[in-house]
Amino acid sequence: MTSSTPNSGAINLDPWFGHYAERASGLSASEVRALFAVASRPEVVSLAGGMPFVRALPQDLVSDALDRVMRDSGPTALQYGSGQGVPALREQILEIMALEGISASSDDVVVTTGSQQALDLVAKLFIDPGDVILAEAPSYVGAIGVFRSYQATMVHLETDADGLVPEALAEGIRRIRADGRTIKFLYTIPNFHNPAGVTLSAERRPEIVRICAEAGVLILEDNPYGLLHFDEPVPDALRSLNPDGIIYLGSFSKTLAPGFRVGWALAPHAIREKLVLAAEAAILCPSSFSQLVISQYLATADWKAQINEFRGVYRDRRDAMLDALGEHLPDLSWNVPNGGFYIWVTLPDDLDSKAMLPRAVTELVAYTPGTAFFADGNGRHNMRLSFCYPPPEAIRLGIRRLATVIAGERDLLETFAGTGRLTPNGSGDSVTAPPPDLS
Amino acid sequence: MTSSTPNSGAINLDPWFGHYAERASGLSASEVRALFAVASRPEVVSLAGGMPFVRALPQDLVSDALDRVMRDSGPTALQYGSGQGVPALREQILEIMALEGISASSDDVVVTTGSQQALDLVAKLFIDPGDVILAEAPSYVGAIGVFRSYQATMVHLETDADGLVPEALAEGIRRIRADGRTIKFLYTIPNFHNPAGVTLSAERRPEIVRICAEAGVLILEDNPYGLLHFDEPVPDALRSLNPDGIIYLGSFSKTLAPGFRVGWALAPHAIREKLVLAAEAAILCPSSFSQLVISQYLATADWKAQINEFRGVYRDRRDAMLDALGEHLPDLSWNVPNGGFYIWVTLPDDLDSKAMLPRAVTELVAYTPGTAFFADGNGRHNMRLSFCYPPPEAIRLGIRRLATVIAGERDLLETFAGTGRLTPNGSGDSVTAPPPDLS
Repeated sequence: MTSSTPNSGAINLDPWFGHYAERASGLSASEVRALFAVASRPEVVSLAGGMPFVRALPQDLVSDALDRVMRDSGPTALQYGSGQGVPALREQILEIMALEGISASSDDVVVTTGSQQALDLVAKLFIDPGDVILAEAPSYVGAIGVFRSYQATMVHLETDADGLVPEALAEGIRRIRADGRTIKFLYTIPNFHNPAGVTLSAERRPEIVRICAEAGVLILEDNPYGLLHFDEPVPDALRSLNPDGIIYLGSFSKTLAPGFRVGWALAPHAIREKLVLAAEAAILCPSSFSQLVISQYLATADWKAQINEFRGVYRDRRDAMLDALGEHLPDLSWNVPNGGFYIWVTLPDDLDSKAMLPRAVTELVAYTPGTAFFADGNGRHNMRLSFCYPPPEAIRLGIRRLATVIAGERDLLETFAGTGRLTPNGSGDSVTAPPPDLS
Repeated sequence: MTSSTPNSGAINLDPWFGHYAERASGLSASEVRALFAVASRPEVVSLAGGMPFVRALPQDLVSDALDRVMRDSGPTALQYGSGQGVPALREQILEIMALEGISASSDDVVVTTGSQQALDLVAKLFIDPGDVILAEAPSYVGAIGVFRSYQATMVHLETDADGLVPEALAEGIRRIRADGRTIKFLYTIPNFHNPAGVTLSAERRPEIVRICAEAGVLILEDNPYGLLHFDEPVPDALRSLNPDGIIYLGSFSKTLAPGFRVGWALAPHAIREKLVLAAEAAILCPSSFSQLVISQYLATADWKAQINEFRGVYRDRRDAMLDALGEHLPDLSWNVPNGGFYIWVTLPDDLDSKAMLPRAVTELVAYTPGTAFFADGNGRHNMRLSFCYPPPEAIRLGIRRLATVIAGERDLLETFAGTGRLTPNGSGDSVTAPPPDLS
C-alpha cells in the first residue's frame, strides 16, 4: 500500500513534500553537518563544539543527589509534575539569579527543557512570519535556527569589544520601523557571548535597556555563561534594570551538566502565563526527575565552589588557546574573553573559513565557520574556536594543526592568485542549524 | 523604567498585549484549571487525572539503572547528545514496537521529551493556520491544545465502540475537501483511547489505513497505552500496515514512568530528517541522562514482567470502577475498556458535566468534563473517569460521591424544571488546555 499526494506528479522523493507547513522551509540542515559527523572521530581535535567539560564535575556529587531523590521523593520524581516546574527548584533559581542582581518571584520562573526550549517557546509566542528579531552580529546559531523556524527575519546589529553598540541598536530600530516592518524583540547574550566572546559593558547596559523600553521593544536576555567568569563577576543582568520589559533565560547546562536538559525563563509577569501554556502544549511538563536531582544538588552540594572549579578549568583552557594562537597564528586577530567558552577569530580577507573547513577536518582539526552565526551570509572571514571541551594539550595541538591548514590555504591562494578559484563569493548559504554547537 | 507599546492606549494589563504572534491566541487557559488546582487537595478523590500509578514500579529497578548509568557512562549521561536520541535506546525502541507488529529502522526513530513533544513537532512541521486536523470524537485534550496552538481547525469524526468509523472518515475527507479546505493529517489513538476508552477493531484498521492512503492523508498514530491491555493484546499497529504514510508515537510515560519525559516518534523516512531538525531547533537534544537510564532499565530489568504488573494494577482499578458505577450510578452509560486508563461516561441529556463540576469538587470528587475532549463545544453530557491513579477503595468512594453529586443535581433540576437555569446551552467554550490530564 502506498500513499499518494496531490503533488505526486512532481519529482521528489518525499511523498509528503506538498504537505509541510510553510514554516518548515525555515528548517534546513547545515551544510557542514556531514563534516561535523566526521569531526566527531576521536583523532580530530574539535574546537567546534560547545560542550561543557562535565568530567570536571565530581560524579559523587551527582550520585549523592540521585540517591537522595530516590530515597526521599522517588514517586514524585517518577511522576508528571507542574507545567511550570518544581516549586522548590524555582525558588533555588531565584538565588542563582540574585548573584547577577535579579530580584524576582518564583511565580514568574518557568522551568524548560534546556534554555533552548525557552527560546522555542518565546519564538512561538511572539513571532509571526516576517517579523524582525534583532540580534548581535554574530549571534548564537541555535537561536538563529529557532527564530527562522518561525519565519522570522534576523537583523544583526554592530557589536564590538564592549558588546552590542547602543547607537547601532537605536539606528536599527529606526530603520526597520521606517521600512514598515515589525520588530518583535532584541535577542542578546550580554555575557561571554556565543560566539563573539565579548561582554556587554556595565556602561552600555542601562543604555540598551532604555533604548528598548522607549521604543517598546522586548528584550530576550540569554545568559548561559554569566557565572563562568575568569576575572571579575559580570555586571548585573539587564533584567535587573527593567523587569517588565525583559525575558531572562538561564541554564544549568554550563554550570552543572547539559545531560539533564534543565534551563529556565524568568518572564515579565504579564507574559508568564502564556509562556506556561505554551510549555504545557509543547511537553506537558519538564522532567520531574531532572528537576529534583538538580534541586537536591543545589540544596546539598557546594555548587558555588563547583562553579569556581569550572572557572579554573576553562580559564586554563582559554589561556592555552590564547598562547597557542599567539605562537602559531600571529597574523590572525581575536578577542580575549574573560569567561565562557569561545574565542572569535578574524581571518585575513583572503581566507574563507567555510571553504577551508574540509581541509581542516582532513588535517584533524575542526572549528565552526563564522557563517553559522549570521543569518545573512556574513562571517566567512571569521571562525569560532571553543576552548571548553578539549584539554589544554589538545587545544595546543589543534591550534598547531589549524596553523598548518591556514599555511596550506595560503600556499594554494598564492598558486591560484587572481583566478578567484578558492573564495566563493558567498551569497548567503549560511549555516544555521543548531547541531554545530554540539559537535 | 517602564516599557511602552504601540497599544499602550488600550485597557489591558499586559504591556506586551499587541506583540504576541497570532498563534498565541490559540493558547487559552482551561476554565477548569482553577478548579483542578482545588481538586489536587488530598481529601479530594480525583478521577480526573491521567497520572500512572508509579508506585507500582519497584524503586530498586530504577535505582539499579541509575547506579549502572553513573558507573558505566556518567560523563555521557551528563553531556549533550544526538538530537535524534541515543542510538542504543532507539534500537531498544524497535523491540518494543515489534510487539505491535512494527518493523522499522532505528534511523527513523526520533526520541522526544515525552510523546507530547512529538505532537508539538509534528504540528509545527505540518500545520499552517486554518489547516484541518481530523480526530476521533472525542480526542485527547493535549493534542487538541497543541494543534490549536498552531491554529489548526479540529474536525471530530464519529467514533463508536470499535473506534473511529471508517465511513465517517471517508465522508469527512470528502466533505472537507469539497469545502476547499486542506487536511493535514488524521490524529488517532487506536488503543484504549483517551478519553473514549475504545480500541479500533482489527477489521477496521486496514480500512482506515486504506482510506487515508488513497486520499493522501497522513496518519498520526498515538499509542501510549497499547501495551496496557487487560485481556488480549491489541491488534497490530496501523503503522505496520503502511510505513510510508504513518507517523507513530510511543511513550515510556505509561509503561515505565512519566518523570523522565521520554517518548518517541517513528516517522516515514522522508519526514524523519525534518522532524530531527525541528527537534534540534526546539531543545537541541533530549536528555541524555533520562535516555540512558531508560536504556539501562530496558537492558537489565524484566520490563515485560513489569508491564504485566501494571496491567494487573490497572485491571483491578477498572474493575473497581465498573462495579461501583453499576452499583451507584446504574442510570448512566459507559464503555468497558480492555486496557488503558479511562472510562467514558455518558450522562442523561439533562445533566451537564461541566456545569456540575464545581458541585463535584465541593463533594470531594473530581472528573474531567467531556467538553475538554472536543474542540467544538460538544461533550457536555459526557465525562472522563480515570481509574489509573487512585487505589480501588478510593475509586469506590469517588463513585459514591459522584452518585451523591448527580442525585443532588437531579433534585435541583426537578426544583427548577422548565426554567432552563441549570443547563447552559453551551456555545463552544470548551476546555482545551492540557493540564486537566495531569491533575
